[in-house]
Amino acid sequence: MENLFDEMSNEKPALHTCLSPALLNLYDVSNSVVVIIDVFRATSTIASALHNGARSVVPVDSVPKAIEISKSIDGIAAGERDGMIADGLQHGNSPLEYSPDFIGNRILVLTTTNGTRLLQMALDRNADTIISGSFPNLSKVCDFLKASGKSVILGCAGWKDRFNLEDTLFAGAVIDRIGEHFTIHCDSSNMALDLFRAHGSDLIGYAPQLTHYHRLVNRFGLIKDIEFCLTIDVAPVLPLYRDGKLIAG
Amino acid sequence: MENLFDEMSNEKPALHTCLSPALLNLYDVSNSVVVIIDVFRATSTIASALHNGARSVVPVDSVPKAIEISKSIDGIAAGERDGMIADGLQHGNSPLEYSPDFIGNRILVLTTTNGTRLLQMALDRNADTIISGSFPNLSKVCDFLKASGKSVILGCAGWKDRFNLEDTLFAGAVIDRIGEHFTIHCDSSNMALDLFRAHGSDLIGYAPQLTHYHRLVNRFGLIKDIEFCLTIDVAPVLPLYRDGKLIAG
Repeated sequence: MENLFDEMSNEKPALHTCLSPALLNLYDVSNSVVVIIDVFRATSTIASALHNGARSVVPVDSVPKAIEISKSIDGIAAGERDGMIADGLQHGNSPLEYSPDFIGNRILVLTTTNGTRLLQMALDRNADTIISGSFPNLSKVCDFLKASGKSVILGCAGWKDRFNLEDTLFAGAVIDRIGEHFTIHCDSSNMALDLFRAHGSDLIGYAPQLTHYHRLVNRFGLIKDIEFCLTIDVAPVLPLYRDGKLIAG
Repeated sequence: MENLFDEMSNEKPALHTCLSPALLNLYDVSNSVVVIIDVFRATSTIASALHNGARSVVPVDSVPKAIEISKSIDGIAAGERDGMIADGLQHGNSPLEYSPDFIGNRILVLTTTNGTRLLQMALDRNADTIISGSFPNLSKVCDFLKASGKSVILGCAGWKDRFNLEDTLFAGAVIDRIGEHFTIHCDSSNMALDLFRAHGSDLIGYAPQLTHYHRLVNRFGLIKDIEFCLTIDVAPVLPLYRDGKLIAG
């Protein structure tokens, strides 16, 4: 990890990890690529939908807006609140719902508790570029960040502004892969890397240590969702935010 | 770590770790003991001063206030901003400045970048009880928390609202010692415990991984301060906040 502290590496762009939406204001997103990370499950679902042929995913911050927009563009309104399909919607936030047959060539209008909210915050703060990241599209995210040459903010969506382990693990996975291409002088990033190196070799085995695992599995029986969300590169696509929607970049 | 997820343990008080002052509003401090943690260096300095015989430590949020109050009570005004002795003060935030000869029977009026600010926030939010914690007084903190029977918020002061590793390590040390007496359903706490178990056996060896280490050692040459701040139980005292000041409880 020594090289991460090499302050001489001024030519490298900076990389920071933001552990909660409530901390986003501490970082300069206006010159950065912001990676929205909501492992359980928004950004895994976005990767799944786009990989399976969705034309785009429109992230919105409320259920009424999801319904209204989906009607106007003949899209599929979907979303969750507190881990369940939101009242008034027929489709939720499960990456397994969006098979090629169902989502192919359609537009998903998605609202979620944490991930879509963080995306809106990054937008409001004039992020240079916004992409979404999750284990199912880890390599695509890493390739994009490495190629962009810009500073990076790994933005963990957390749970209602609280820190969570799974988003931090994903940040650590990115740093493990491409950290050497960035100047990292950020304790959050070093912690994330440490965490991933300790547990990254068996994410599914580690999952019962996550509070969110218990919320999803014990209450909603979503073990298959968890497994998908913790499997690397099963939905290799780069969700890139442009003009109000995420498209396969 | 299984037992930390035992949701049946309802009779045990809850324990949460708050990773930044900017997240304190997410926790109910009004029924909790809040532990203010600012390892480098405010809470280590508070432990040092009280252990070496200071009558009390008065935490204040500004340099002018530190000067004014110290004059009115014949105290010692001290504090730092950005790691250095604050302009207008003669004494800083080094635990090694406060020897028994100097601080014995006197009142320290202290202002710091992070720790005293978090204490003020806990106060404003009507914390039930406020204590301060650091490695030099780890055992005293653990004994108090275990005996109190109340819920606990381990409050990391961080660095200007950013996460830092050293305060989180201290939270992990507390959880490692007494976690079994609490219901812990909090990813921050599980991460802190994980971090401490990985690095707690050689804190001084791990220190160069901390961004704050570089700020203090490379810029200010404060290696002795770092060593003191990472040494367990060298200032065994319980700083307890009562009526505007921290006293040896």
